[in-house]
Amino acid sequence: MTELNPPRGMRDLVGGEAELYEYLFSEFRDTARRFGFEPIITPTLEYFAVFEAKSGEEIKKSMYVFEDKSKRLLALRPEVTASVIRAYLRLMRARPKPIRLYYIAQCFRYEEPQYARYREFWQGGLEVIGDKDVNADLLVATAASEFLDRIGLRHVYIVGNVATYRALMRKMGVAEEIQDHILHLIDKDQVDKALEELRATVGEGYVELIRRIILTDDLSKIESLIRDYKDFLGELYEVVEQEQSRLCDFIQALKDLGYQARYQPRLVRGLAYYTGLIFEYKLEGKEAEPSIGGGGRYDGLTAVYGGPFEYATGLALGIDRIALATSKSPSHEVKKVLMVLALGGVPLSFAYRVLKNIIGHPAGVAMLKGFVYRPRNLARGLEYGNKIGCDFVVIIGEKEYREGKATIKDMKSGEQKTVRVDEALNTILGMLQG
Amino acid sequence: MTELNPPRGMRDLVGGEAELYEYLFSEFRDTARRFGFEPIITPTLEYFAVFEAKSGEEIKKSMYVFEDKSKRLLALRPEVTASVIRAYLRLMRARPKPIRLYYIAQCFRYEEPQYARYREFWQGGLEVIGDKDVNADLLVATAASEFLDRIGLRHVYIVGNVATYRALMRKMGVAEEIQDHILHLIDKDQVDKALEELRATVGEGYVELIRRIILTDDLSKIESLIRDYKDFLGELYEVVEQEQSRLCDFIQALKDLGYQARYQPRLVRGLAYYTGLIFEYKLEGKEAEPSIGGGGRYDGLTAVYGGPFEYATGLALGIDRIALATSKSPSHEVKKVLMVLALGGVPLSFAYRVLKNIIGHPAGVAMLKGFVYRPRNLARGLEYGNKIGCDFVVIIGEKEYREGKATIKDMKSGEQKTVRVDEALNTILGMLQG
Repeated sequence: MTELNPPRGMRDLVGGEAELYEYLFSEFRDTARRFGFEPIITPTLEYFAVFEAKSGEEIKKSMYVFEDKSKRLLALRPEVTASVIRAYLRLMRARPKPIRLYYIAQCFRYEEPQYARYREFWQGGLEVIGDKDVNADLLVATAASEFLDRIGLRHVYIVGNVATYRALMRKMGVAEEIQDHILHLIDKDQVDKALEELRATVGEGYVELIRRIILTDDLSKIESLIRDYKDFLGELYEVVEQEQSRLCDFIQALKDLGYQARYQPRLVRGLAYYTGLIFEYKLEGKEAEPSIGGGGRYDGLTAVYGGPFEYATGLALGIDRIALATSKSPSHEVKKVLMVLALGGVPLSFAYRVLKNIIGHPAGVAMLKGFVYRPRNLARGLEYGNKIGCDFVVIIGEKEYREGKATIKDMKSGEQKTVRVDEALNTILGMLQG
Repeated sequence: MTELNPPRGMRDLVGGEAELYEYLFSEFRDTARRFGFEPIITPTLEYFAVFEAKSGEEIKKSMYVFEDKSKRLLALRPEVTASVIRAYLRLMRARPKPIRLYYIAQCFRYEEPQYARYREFWQGGLEVIGDKDVNADLLVATAASEFLDRIGLRHVYIVGNVATYRALMRKMGVAEEIQDHILHLIDKDQVDKALEELRATVGEGYVELIRRIILTDDLSKIESLIRDYKDFLGELYEVVEQEQSRLCDFIQALKDLGYQARYQPRLVRGLAYYTGLIFEYKLEGKEAEPSIGGGGRYDGLTAVYGGPFEYATGLALGIDRIALATSKSPSHEVKKVLMVLALGGVPLSFAYRVLKNIIGHPAGVAMLKGFVYRPRNLARGLEYGNKIGCDFVVIIGEKEYREGKATIKDMKSGEQKTVRVDEALNTILGMLQG
């Protein structure tokens, strides 16, 4: 065994990179909780059928799929929403709705790794189940924006709505899988091909209207466009009109809250389960680059798994792209590093008691962290402390131990003091202030 | 798709159970950091060869293994230490040692699920690389004990040391794989069979001494036993004597720190990579039940992966068993739940600003969390708030909105007050105190 690299497209995160991920996980979790979301942890492995149902063409092609020993087809999750809905149907149906859930989970896709695209990648997600109102979309969006604000990422919303396209296609008798495929083509910027296929399948119908909506980037013009088609739309008019106002309300509320939001009629997103409002997050000034996350309505995904129809919306942020974009250093770690050196025959248990009295004391807990080390000699211990950037070293030699004392050394200033061990914490706090 | 259960042996963690896991993850992470450990995140999927090398007979038989599309054999990690060592060799060799690392990760084993044994399970681990001293063992142990103390789990250390057995067998010319197998038999309580196989392989040698050590539960008698064999041991005497004093020092230090620790000569543990001191954690009063974690020395595992010899020690705690044993309710969540009700035509952005001004304010951030909800009417909103146990509801109707006001309702006392929105936080804080 001399291959030290992890499998292709996978990573070892160590040092500052691991710290950054922990920081992002912790900020995401904290923000989600503050906005009333509660955690859910679903299996990393699922039956393939869970994702087969509605995960979109791209994703289905690039899953890690294998048979277990009893020949059941399993898949490493390519995303988490399908599992959340499955778990909702199994365990949470009786709860008062809406239900707000968050997760942080690694997902897998088997495709050529590219810059910032890995075969194992991390997602932070928010879901609201059981609320039809646009407020549910706004709740996940606001919480995600708050997270991005906290880590210092200025971002732009790109907003679309597939409900209108789906409603028009449904009325034309287009099967759901064909709808998914047409939307997939629009997402791939193959609008002409999508419309041709649509015409070839069900004839003209609303195809011209769909084309005009797809090509109208100015949201204010959509309203009059739809009004022009009012008689032609008949009973569909109300649905289309409602979805357009959901779109406007969402964008307007985001703008009122100080965020940038832009309408993009050709936004469709890769997952086949989206049914209505959808959105993506772009980094400010980098709108041509891939999004750092996105989400939308997936009303009725519950029914795909045999459950009753339920409204639902959610989003997932790509932690890996966010990590690459986060210039801000992890601000959560402000603790000073302390090393207790146990020299010669000093009992280790004594050194640990000294350590615990310092880092475990209410006055020390927020400011200090540390460990015990027993080097070959003092010089070796201090050299190590210097190399790893210790702030304070507590030196306990045999003489100090017999007298119940310790020498505190401030590694930055070089100042040192020998004090009774029960004064160690105060001495350090004093050095910290002075 | 009507199968709602996750794959056999895997779980959906929701509600209080998910909260408990998050709490345990957070306490483990926090304790590890306080003791100077830094995070490492390794891939969930590894090349099979990484685990094939030294994971032990049991584990090798029960891995999830499959071929990727380029016919490379991959495995879902059954444990994390092998990956940590691989990542150490790849990325951390130049760092000043010792290096202290922690992880929280799900692992997988493909075997019949039993009570508290799942096919996907969670481990919290600590590793120290590059320190020969027993202090490194004590550092991981003390940090783990601190974590268990914090979550209220009284625990007992069961301590052994396979170094003596390995040294004696090595001297007798027993190949390492045979050593692993013999130790595996001892671990399975098949001492007689182990000794017979040993005799059959290499003759009598030290077999009688090994037998006597294995059957001597009283640590104080081991010392004189080894002295009796001093001449017979020759140059091995010093190694054996050192390992015995490491064992005694470890146990004594733990006892001095107030922990219960017991010597168990037949403790071997399932992983083949252990080379010296080993230990397990049992719940107090439940010592006959499976351990909640364990660890030990794996000096030289680096060499198995083609690197230079390096001292190393570590442990992993089984979060699932710990979760089952944790009676203490998650104490980290003390925040009161607030719901902002946006009624009628009140702009959602206004409601979100009110929410953010309350939960985002320094005075509110530690005490309150909340969300915006737009119910069909006030009664529906309050009913929902009641059902999910909201502490406060901030009601904003159109009249309140026009006047820049909100009605704060304390759901526990029923008290309510209409105040200017910029007084909402203070009003809530007042209600919290009164």
